[in-house]
Amino acid sequence: MLDRTTPQAVRPRAYRSGEIRRSTLPSGLRVVTEELAGSRAFCVGFFAAVGSRHESARLHGASHFLEHVLFKGTPRRTAEEIALSVESVGGELNAYTAKEHTCFHGRVMAEDAALVVDVLADMITDSLLLGSDIDAERAVILDEIAMHHDDPGDVGADLVTTAIFGDQGLGRPVIGSVRSITALRRHQVDAYWRRYYRPTEIVVAAAGAVDHDQLVDQLAVFGGFAGDPGRRVRRQPAVTSPTTVHTGAQLVVATRDSAQVSATLAAGCPGMFDDRRYALGLLSLVLGGGMSSRLFIEVRERRGLTYSIESGESVYSDAGLFSIDWQCAPERLADILAVVRQVTGELAEDGISERELAQAKTQLRGQTILAYEGPNARMSRLGSSAVSGEERGLEEHLNAYDAVTADEVQQIAQHLFDEGPVLGVVGPKVSRRRLESVLARW
Amino acid sequence: MLDRTTPQAVRPRAYRSGEIRRSTLPSGLRVVTEELAGSRAFCVGFFAAVGSRHESARLHGASHFLEHVLFKGTPRRTAEEIALSVESVGGELNAYTAKEHTCFHGRVMAEDAALVVDVLADMITDSLLLGSDIDAERAVILDEIAMHHDDPGDVGADLVTTAIFGDQGLGRPVIGSVRSITALRRHQVDAYWRRYYRPTEIVVAAAGAVDHDQLVDQLAVFGGFAGDPGRRVRRQPAVTSPTTVHTGAQLVVATRDSAQVSATLAAGCPGMFDDRRYALGLLSLVLGGGMSSRLFIEVRERRGLTYSIESGESVYSDAGLFSIDWQCAPERLADILAVVRQVTGELAEDGISERELAQAKTQLRGQTILAYEGPNARMSRLGSSAVSGEERGLEEHLNAYDAVTADEVQQIAQHLFDEGPVLGVVGPKVSRRRLESVLARW
Repeated sequence: MLDRTTPQAVRPRAYRSGEIRRSTLPSGLRVVTEELAGSRAFCVGFFAAVGSRHESARLHGASHFLEHVLFKGTPRRTAEEIALSVESVGGELNAYTAKEHTCFHGRVMAEDAALVVDVLADMITDSLLLGSDIDAERAVILDEIAMHHDDPGDVGADLVTTAIFGDQGLGRPVIGSVRSITALRRHQVDAYWRRYYRPTEIVVAAAGAVDHDQLVDQLAVFGGFAGDPGRRVRRQPAVTSPTTVHTGAQLVVATRDSAQVSATLAAGCPGMFDDRRYALGLLSLVLGGGMSSRLFIEVRERRGLTYSIESGESVYSDAGLFSIDWQCAPERLADILAVVRQVTGELAEDGISERELAQAKTQLRGQTILAYEGPNARMSRLGSSAVSGEERGLEEHLNAYDAVTADEVQQIAQHLFDEGPVLGVVGPKVSRRRLESVLARW
Repeated sequence: MLDRTTPQAVRPRAYRSGEIRRSTLPSGLRVVTEELAGSRAFCVGFFAAVGSRHESARLHGASHFLEHVLFKGTPRRTAEEIALSVESVGGELNAYTAKEHTCFHGRVMAEDAALVVDVLADMITDSLLLGSDIDAERAVILDEIAMHHDDPGDVGADLVTTAIFGDQGLGRPVIGSVRSITALRRHQVDAYWRRYYRPTEIVVAAAGAVDHDQLVDQLAVFGGFAGDPGRRVRRQPAVTSPTTVHTGAQLVVATRDSAQVSATLAAGCPGMFDDRRYALGLLSLVLGGGMSSRLFIEVRERRGLTYSIESGESVYSDAGLFSIDWQCAPERLADILAVVRQVTGELAEDGISERELAQAKTQLRGQTILAYEGPNARMSRLGSSAVSGEERGLEEHLNAYDAVTADEVQQIAQHLFDEGPVLGVVGPKVSRRRLESVLARW
């Protein structure tokens, strides 16, 4: 057990929110803003409630493909003009696709707010989706898939995600497969867009130097999004089990010609609306949340077995994935796994002290306040929360963490690997026997 | 040629600095701070004027090794206590080693400012450098080297840097080699520390919620740094040629078992104190600075040949390295290289229009203002500028960019590859013939 001796007075630190305002337009489009004093930046994101989770096997990768294609041009702007319009004033435009939402975002100086909103709304509501552009972008995405397959961390994440969630949207990589991307046709991408990019399914979030009323006025005049509001979106069913579809300890391996192995030890965990996520968050912090975490100290500081080791959770609406990640020399993999087993076992058996719990809460609160100081992080959180129906604000989240008891942390530690841990390994060939024996006795 | 038709009024946007204060302590230690209204974060960095450039071949990697070892403990704190002291209040502590400086930095809430300064000063002035800690950290760094060798981007950067700067500090990787790290002894690391970490060679920079006087008072009471102020630091001689030691076009290849190749086209370029760097910065922005840059549009938007391509410069005190980077399918490498040659050739031959120049200046100014909105970026810039003797503030830099003429941009475009371009390729085996023929005719 770690001896955490540095005395720390726990001082309450309140998260200070700017003025948060919410509006729903007649079209159903939701707008949420937070004005931050002192910021000259206007950060905005259009969040669509669709991601790889909503894809059938045939449409695997469609959400991400569509995200790319919406940058290719509208009747008012070519792809070059979309990029140039925002970059030439020093702004940025970008997008990402997640499992449960897709986000198009921009950052400009306050005086260019109307410009970036116009460009983003134009892309999302009025893209041309030309066949030739779709084919050019298909080639780019196939390159992106090849890069993804060359990245051991990405491959390891895919291995454990598929092992835990199985062959359904949540278990498949966001990016798609060579096969599905090669097969996707223009009419499918177009139908996907019209189905999911309707105003009721979109949240516009902005933070920084924001004028809420001006933003609402500007968004009200758009003719509407591609989606036909008359048709209801039928969502992909949730995962079949409340947490995971996986059972039993598993070792999943992808062989690569590299010097180091990349390892991910994972398990299903509570989702966004399950209050056990707060106990899990604190457990994860104590276990692998930084240079003072138990795993970092045992594996790196005391034994010098690896450059770094850390834990984290991905949280979806009704399920999550907890993981511990590290890279190491192949001959040290089994040793590190044994230490991880020991450290997680101690947490399950002995729990954490009141002092360690209080420290973890202070740490989490301070980190959160610092992480959300800038407008981009605030916009991002406002938008992703709103689009997933998560109504707690940041201060309420922090209060929920503060309410967690040491018993609850121990409970979650005891049940974290109930379904058996999944170990994903990417790198040179390793002997499976010792790894499987540690996993089997978890 | 690109037709940049979107009309943009060029509005002058002033960079707004907080109050910047500078002090030099009797010990020679310099302190520079910038107070930012509205920030609750205190960001601080200790910048030592030493990096891999100052290393002899025998001490290759010593700067970075020392950076690691200074986290391992002092008479007042173990490694665990160093990490825990800052993380338990929600703060962060980290460090990096560059070619010409080493930085130890922390971010905490304002009320913990004195704590993080105490921890950092303790590490830097009073580390134990125990032999056992040095050996444990040696294992960690050997792992880090293995990770570095598994990363195609890192390997490509090493290949071109060595080709251009040769076998001297600036040409060698910061991280060291397996051989040099295995051979480094405790007394060498200790001597290196005492030689370079003297107060005259250190700058403490802070930004955010900062009280300059309090910081100066706190730093004044430290007993002094490891370095003996009586001995003068003898710096490594500068590179032999004003820009590079490399001559002639070169292809340097490292074969890896991956799906994609990672390519870096590079050349020596003006350093920090050469005013041509401003023309180069604008050239680089137009060429490969974003989604509206000429290379991105020609290579990705129009031809779909790669996921991304971008350019950038690394600037040192008396030399720099300009590069264009991309990843692609092996069979497209020569095609992309040919497009890069064509696009850079057009810039050399036709230059850029006044309109394009004005747009690039507006873009650079806006990007800079947005990038430096937060306290961490400000601290980072203040410290790295001060430690390298760069006295221009951000607004003066922006004015220097504004003063660049289209002729100066064309001049730099014409001479960029005068010594012949160096192409670094990491990935599956490619045919050298076509690549070498494009390089030879550059």
